[in-house]
Amino acid sequence: MHFNLAFIGFGTVGQGLTEILLDKKEMLLEKYDFSYDVVAISDIMKGSVYDKNGLNLKKILKLVKSGKKLDEYPFGFKGLDSLATITDTNSNTIVEVTFTDVKTGEPALTHIKTALQSGKNVVSTNKGPVVKQPNKLLKLAESKNVYYGFEGVVLSGTPVLNLAKYTLAGNKITGFKGILNGTTNYILTRMEEGMSYEDALKKAQELGYAEADPTGDVEGLDALGKVVILSNVVLGKKLSWTDVKRKGITGIKEDDIKKAKSEGKRWKLIGSAIIEQNGSVKAKIWPEKLPLNNPLAGVGEALNALTYYTDELGSVTIVGPGAGRRETGYSLLIDLLDINRKMSD
Amino acid sequence: MHFNLAFIGFGTVGQGLTEILLDKKEMLLEKYDFSYDVVAISDIMKGSVYDKNGLNLKKILKLVKSGKKLDEYPFGFKGLDSLATITDTNSNTIVEVTFTDVKTGEPALTHIKTALQSGKNVVSTNKGPVVKQPNKLLKLAESKNVYYGFEGVVLSGTPVLNLAKYTLAGNKITGFKGILNGTTNYILTRMEEGMSYEDALKKAQELGYAEADPTGDVEGLDALGKVVILSNVVLGKKLSWTDVKRKGITGIKEDDIKKAKSEGKRWKLIGSAIIEQNGSVKAKIWPEKLPLNNPLAGVGEALNALTYYTDELGSVTIVGPGAGRRETGYSLLIDLLDINRKMSD
Repeated sequence: MHFNLAFIGFGTVGQGLTEILLDKKEMLLEKYDFSYDVVAISDIMKGSVYDKNGLNLKKILKLVKSGKKLDEYPFGFKGLDSLATITDTNSNTIVEVTFTDVKTGEPALTHIKTALQSGKNVVSTNKGPVVKQPNKLLKLAESKNVYYGFEGVVLSGTPVLNLAKYTLAGNKITGFKGILNGTTNYILTRMEEGMSYEDALKKAQELGYAEADPTGDVEGLDALGKVVILSNVVLGKKLSWTDVKRKGITGIKEDDIKKAKSEGKRWKLIGSAIIEQNGSVKAKIWPEKLPLNNPLAGVGEALNALTYYTDELGSVTIVGPGAGRRETGYSLLIDLLDINRKMSD
Repeated sequence: MHFNLAFIGFGTVGQGLTEILLDKKEMLLEKYDFSYDVVAISDIMKGSVYDKNGLNLKKILKLVKSGKKLDEYPFGFKGLDSLATITDTNSNTIVEVTFTDVKTGEPALTHIKTALQSGKNVVSTNKGPVVKQPNKLLKLAESKNVYYGFEGVVLSGTPVLNLAKYTLAGNKITGFKGILNGTTNYILTRMEEGMSYEDALKKAQELGYAEADPTGDVEGLDALGKVVILSNVVLGKKLSWTDVKRKGITGIKEDDIKKAKSEGKRWKLIGSAIIEQNGSVKAKIWPEKLPLNNPLAGVGEALNALTYYTDELGSVTIVGPGAGRRETGYSLLIDLLDINRKMSD
């Protein structure tokens, strides 16, 4: 099919997707019969531009990377806000990648609702709306015969949601266990090599893995959001933030690491949820000492991993990146190709 | 859609799928709008039966598990051979699970060609035809507007082919590296615990992992077939058996295992293929000493694993079972659900 894309937000993830779309334009057309124009971009910092015949993406990237505003783009209509960019353009699919409050889900939630209500597909990497009300949004999409894809909200481009939905279809998934945060996994990897927690955190900050305030990562809050999403989307439950027990990695001392090593084990910050006999779900983020023959134990550096427990295959684990500009941009392409398959058949 | 299935071959894999279809009948209908009848079964040892209104699968399983022939089934038409079961029944989809010579691909190759030419979908776990001529068969299927699925030929139900085709779509896959044989991985796991090769092999034979003649596993021939399939189907190359360098695990001594352990490494039998700069592909089965922070190093027992090298995500690894009655039966359900999605849209 032909996509007329409108980007709401144009930070690193949006730019990552744009680079991929540029690099792979021919391949996408040949292999998947997937063609596109980007007709509009609206960003709260960078301004907005709309051209119903499509924007020149090379020019756009050059502008933005040199710190200029979209108003300096030589063609098209300027000044539409995000909602007008969604409703008043010839876009048929909205790429929602704004900075959003993960607790309230705004402004992404409003963007996504507006787009779906207008009969437009949405692909988004924003966690907030998926934590808040995934089923409501998916139902809204269904009622309008469009699609809402959010593969990137858990492990960026490592396709854990599509894996559960398509390639493991027919299985009953009864739980999961995973390394859902790359920053803490990086810190634990360095500590096992003998580095102190403080030095490992500093190194993670230098590499851009950890924020200046690392609380969200090291106290397990980032991973917690992902446990909520996986529980609700994959296990079909209705968890909220407060239903997940949480402990971060700040209590793990160098002695604990050494002791685990001497036992042939390794500390990992594990997010998990298991459906119990009575149908309720037990979910937590908690540091665990894993034996080295557990597939999650071998996952080092900033990599992420997720094990699904299934009735037909037992444990199935996928290991891949959990962050990154191109990687997260690519998660949006997974969703776009999925929509392309569904709408083309 | 509604599947009228005909089974060609009814050994453990066919029976495994039948059990799954029985156990999950309601779920498949509700969740995927997937309904079925098994209208015919033809097995060279067990005889054949055809009823255009569908067979009673509980009765069929009971018969077969008590060692009786299908002729004793109280209804239906008896005596159709495999080709007549394909062409002269009201089946729309053929489940091809015969015992087949992996070198010639027969009789599966003839069954599959005949079915596709008759405009019927095929799902099959037979390696031979996929090693011999996957593209020819896929093109034949396309020309007849039907599908040929063979997810089970590499890692049984661990969905490595669907992962590459759908959930990693849009990536350029430039190579792979994997543990493609469970028997040798089981033997190496036991040897690392201190068991001798001979004892570990004996144990693998007792557990049914290894055949009385273990050559196909321990010399890397089974894994070699899988490297050929992955190279041709996923990397789009045209390899044959003789293009893959091969060395098994029989040369690995207890001292080698100990030495690797002291270096913080682990021996694994690795099947790999990498596309070179000039477009040619370098493929081999070879024992490798992996550092413990390689995701493949943590894969123990009879588990299998595969790492894809991709341009957008770097390395993505999946770990799961590589054999088993229900697991391989389930691989056929993956293919059936895939056809269901494509034909229902």
